[in-house]
Order: sequence, then C-alpha cells, then structure tokens
Amino acid sequence: MKILLIGASGTIGSAIATALGARHELILASVQKSPEQVDISDAASIRALFARVGRVDAVVSAAGRASFKPLTELGDEDFELSLSNKLMGQVNLVLLGLASVVDGGSFTLTAGYLARHPIPGSGAVSLVNSGLEGFGRAAALEAPRGIRVNVVSPPWVTETLLKMGRAPDGGLAAAAVAQAYVRSVEGTITGQTIDPSAAS
Amino acid sequence: MKILLIGASGTIGSAIATALGARHELILASVQKSPEQVDISDAASIRALFARVGRVDAVVSAAGRASFKPLTELGDEDFELSLSNKLMGQVNLVLLGLASVVDGGSFTLTAGYLARHPIPGSGAVSLVNSGLEGFGRAAALEAPRGIRVNVVSPPWVTETLLKMGRAPDGGLAAAAVAQAYVRSVEGTITGQTIDPSAAS
Repeated sequence: MKILLIGASGTIGSAIATALGARHELILASVQKSPEQVDISDAASIRALFARVGRVDAVVSAAGRASFKPLTELGDEDFELSLSNKLMGQVNLVLLGLASVVDGGSFTLTAGYLARHPIPGSGAVSLVNSGLEGFGRAAALEAPRGIRVNVVSPPWVTETLLKMGRAPDGGLAAAAVAQAYVRSVEGTITGQTIDPSAAS
Repeated sequence: MKILLIGASGTIGSAIATALGARHELILASVQKSPEQVDISDAASIRALFARVGRVDAVVSAAGRASFKPLTELGDEDFELSLSNKLMGQVNLVLLGLASVVDGGSFTLTAGYLARHPIPGSGAVSLVNSGLEGFGRAAALEAPRGIRVNVVSPPWVTETLLKMGRAPDGGLAAAAVAQAYVRSVEGTITGQTIDPSAAS
C-alpha cells in the first residue's frame, strides 16, 4: 500500500513509520521535519499536500496540537488552537482527502485517553479527543467507495512520560501503540475507536 | 434554588421549565423568545447575561445549534456554526459563568445521542455532542468551590419527531428527558453524561 503518514516525526508517528514501513510505501509528512510538509490547521496546506501526493491507499494522522491548561486559565486562544489544530485539522484531513483515497482505502486519526479519562488540565484536550472519536464514528457511516475511518485513542506513551521526567508506570510503549494503527490500516474495521492497550 | 435556564423556549427547555418551575425560581433565557436574551455563540452576550442575572444556584443549558448535513456537503461554515454555537457556546457558559454560581452549585449542559449513535448526516453534530461530553467530564474535575458539571445526552424527543413528521417510535417524551436535568440540578452527581432513557 501507499500510505500518507502525517505527524511522522513525533513519538507515535515514528513508531507507526517503523511498524508500517517494512511492508508499505510511506509518504512521511509533518510540520517541518519530514520530506512532505503540512500544517493541518491550514486547509490550503492540506489541499496542497494531497495535490502533491496524489492517490493513496491510506491516510494516517498522528498529528495535532491541543492546549493542556487548568480549566480557569483556558482562554479563547487555547480553544482556538485546540479546535483548529488537533480537532478540525484532522477532520479536514478526512473531508479534503476523501477524493485522494482509493476505493476501500482508509483514514486513521488520533484522539487520546483523556477523552474518557480526564485529568486536571485536560478540559480542552478532552473536548478535542472526544470530538474526534464522535466524528470518526459518524464519518465512517458516510465515507464513500468503501473508505474506512477509525480513530486511535492512545494512552500515555512510555517514551513521552520519560521525556517529561515522569514515571513510565501505566504508559504503553510507542511500538505497542503503533500496532493499533496497523490494525486500522491493514484490517477491515471501520467506525471504531481503537484503544491500543486493549487486547487486539 | 435560583436557576438560570438557557434555551428555555425550545422543546426540551420548555419541559425543563415545567419540571423545575414548581419548586425553584427560574430565570428563563433564550435567543429571542424568553425574558432574558442571550446568544451563546457570542462571549460578550454571555458575559452580559451573567452580569444582569447575578448569583445563581444552577445554570442549565438546553441551547445550541449544530449543522446536520451529509458528510461530503459539510463545509467550513457548517463546522464554524456548530463549533461556535452548540459546542463553544455551552463551554463558555461554564467558563464565563463559574464566578456567578454559588458554592456547591451546578452546570448542566446538553449534548445528544448522536455522540455515540451517529446516523448519516451527523458528522458535525456527533463531533459537537461527543466534544461536550468530553469537556463536561473534564471540567467537573476542576470546577472550583464544589461546583458540579454534568452533561445530559438526550435521545430523539417524541415531540420533535412529530414536528418533523416522523414516527415517534424510539423517541422519549420531553417531560421524561427533563427529569435528567432535574437529577443533575437537585442531585449530587458530577462529571456524568446522563442518558435520560436509562433507568435513574
């Protein structure tokens, strides 16, 4: 398969590239550090990416920024960033990318555990992650030509916790998280919210 | 209790007013048809409402517009409306209203079944409803002074189905839906997504 991977330079994105790269042709994209550059908060940038890349079998996104901040400190600019980047950025990958995906191809987006397991500071992130899960379930019903849509909702990633100087307990290794994306891309499921820590 | 009810003129809002009105002092607000007017998509309008109303024991919202349209016809303006009105409008009721709610008071917002039971055309609505559920769960963790936050996620309302000329099968009467708001306002639960059709 020819797979467009957006957010390819991140912790999860790199692990997805490793997991899928041996068997598939990958087109790696990210804001700056990949061969293809894209700013998902900018619809024109997404359109230009799909125009450059042409037809693909799958689009995988592990991209998107959202603002983690105490509830009473969350301001308009935090929601503006979170909604335009991680939420609508990934929604627009689907809406603007549908025509570039082959019959029976797939989209796999990234939400996160905070959708259903909030912690203090996650007001905007939980909103965005839950919204992505809801959009994915709905979009799967209407995607044309047998195109599948799934959302991976990863727990904390061990490597990320270590980078943050936190105990890695309860985290899942990026390589294990990446297997959820493999299931979505290579399998037949659609409309699913995939929890990488659940037995597959 | 003194309760600010936003969206008071709608089908669900009217039923909430009936259910809570006998025991509590209600301040009814909506875009046009209530004693207090508010446009929840406009932060200045929300601020002005809270300034006029003063301290309340509870804020209940059954307000918010979102765009129902086939996936491939959903455009920027549909997401703009849905995100600024039903989603961020209700989020801002919490963020801008926290200081107006008494210790141990509550917020009750409205999402909807399409969050978890999408149908064709619900891409934007499912996103918004799921996002509200996620925000409510998170906001409840951080609301100060014992303030509670719940989200009611109603199924189709019988009266609405009849107005649409559809069969009312599977709908729930507005009066039954309203009882979910009563549970949130008068009870002690917080951080919950309340399904009015589930046994209480």
